[in-house]
Amino acid sequence: MPFVNIRITKEGATKEQKEKLITGVTDLLVDVLGKNPKTTFVIIDEVETDNWGIGGESVTTVRSRSS
Amino acid sequence: MPFVNIRITKEGATKEQKEKLITGVTDLLVDVLGKNPKTTFVIIDEVETDNWGIGGESVTTVRSRSS
Amino acid sequence: MPFVNIRITKEGATKEQKEKLITGVTDLLVDVLGKNPKTTFVIIDEVETDNWGIGGESVTTVRSRSS
Amino acid sequence: MPFVNIRITKEGATKEQKEKLITGVTDLLVDVLGKNPKTTFVIIDEVETDNWGIGGESVTTVRSRSS
Amino acid sequence: MPFVNIRITKEGATKEQKEKLITGVTDLLVDVLGKNPKTTFVIIDEVETDNWGIGGESVTTVRSRSS
Amino acid sequence: MPFVNIRITKEGATKEQKEKLITGVTDLLVDVLGKNPKTTFVIIDEVETDNWGIGGESVTTVRSRSS
Repeated sequence: MPFVNIRITKEGATKEQKEKLITGVTDLLVDVLGKNPKTTFVIIDEVETDNWGIGGESVTTVRSRSS
Repeated sequence: MPFVNIRITKEGATKEQKEKLITGVTDLLVDVLGKNPKTTFVIIDEVETDNWGIGGESVTTVRSRSS
Repeated sequence: MPFVNIRITKEGATKEQKEKLITGVTDLLVDVLGKNPKTTFVIIDEVETDNWGIGGESVTTVRSRSS
Repeated sequence: MPFVNIRITKEGATKEQKEKLITGVTDLLVDVLGKNPKTTFVIIDEVETDNWGIGGESVTTVRSRSS
Repeated sequence: MPFVNIRITKEGATKEQKEKLITGVTDLLVDVLGKNPKTTFVIIDEVETDNWGIGGESVTTVRSRSS
Repeated sequence: MPFVNIRITKEGATKEQKEKLITGVTDLLVDVLGKNPKTTFVIIDEVETDNWGIGGESVTTVRSRSS
């Protein structure tokens, strides 16, 4: 009964892409560890770029410089 | 000083229901472990059904089939 | 299909107490939100007192002063 | 490669304040543990006051009484 | 720069299986969302069966009944 | 009443270093957001290098190559 939490920046992941993440990570846990998919939970958190930091600055700042 | 994180799908839990969850889980920690309610935190995360997976598919997909 | 994460300091909670937390929080989600207990997960994390801070110091330090 | 998750109530933290949290916590991990800032992640979650409980009631309720 | 947290019961996952989970979930994020693997973190938490509840009881209790 | 969770690899952080992280991050929240330190929680999770992945492989594997 695994629990998986995927955190990504909120930058337009579509419903279809999120569905693929859910299916893919569930299949992975079945294949590698023989887990039961029926009790495998996946939660995707989409985080605003202002609220995600890397290298000491927000992703918003990183993105503005590289554009 | 316990910390409790409750994650549920975002499907219309009311302010009153969330207040009951907070009170209930705090009382439980006081009763079972003698914890101090003043330093007991409860955070409720409501997750979009597109972003919650079970059985390899999103709750949105599960709900659409059962309706 | 709620997911609950309870974090407490590692200070001797017994197997019976942990079982009571699991049952209590599951019942609460059934009572307040009508959730299905079969797909309700509860994870208890027990954290070393050196690794838990409150008021700017570790619980180890807080406990040593009050004893 | 540390990962830091800061959870605060959603009560108007500005983009500048969040940037300062990201920089400050990253610097702290560099100074104390010699971590590489390039692989230091910080995620800030802002939680609605209805969804954050302390002392057995929501922060919304606490705030309404003290105002 | 995704962050993935996989939580499983502590029941003997090997170093090789954990390596496969890390590789698999990283590949998935590259394939589905075009994420950079270099800044993709995966953390696996292995939780004692006494500390994981499902259906209102611990996995320890569930396992003892089915054996 | 902020809650901060710091996750680092388990590679020998001392009690003193962890105390500094707790004090530093609490001070930061007081300085930047005017939070009350008495209800500021910090939890440090130390994760085995086998259980932390970056770039599609475990930190154990990364470390073995660079040594």
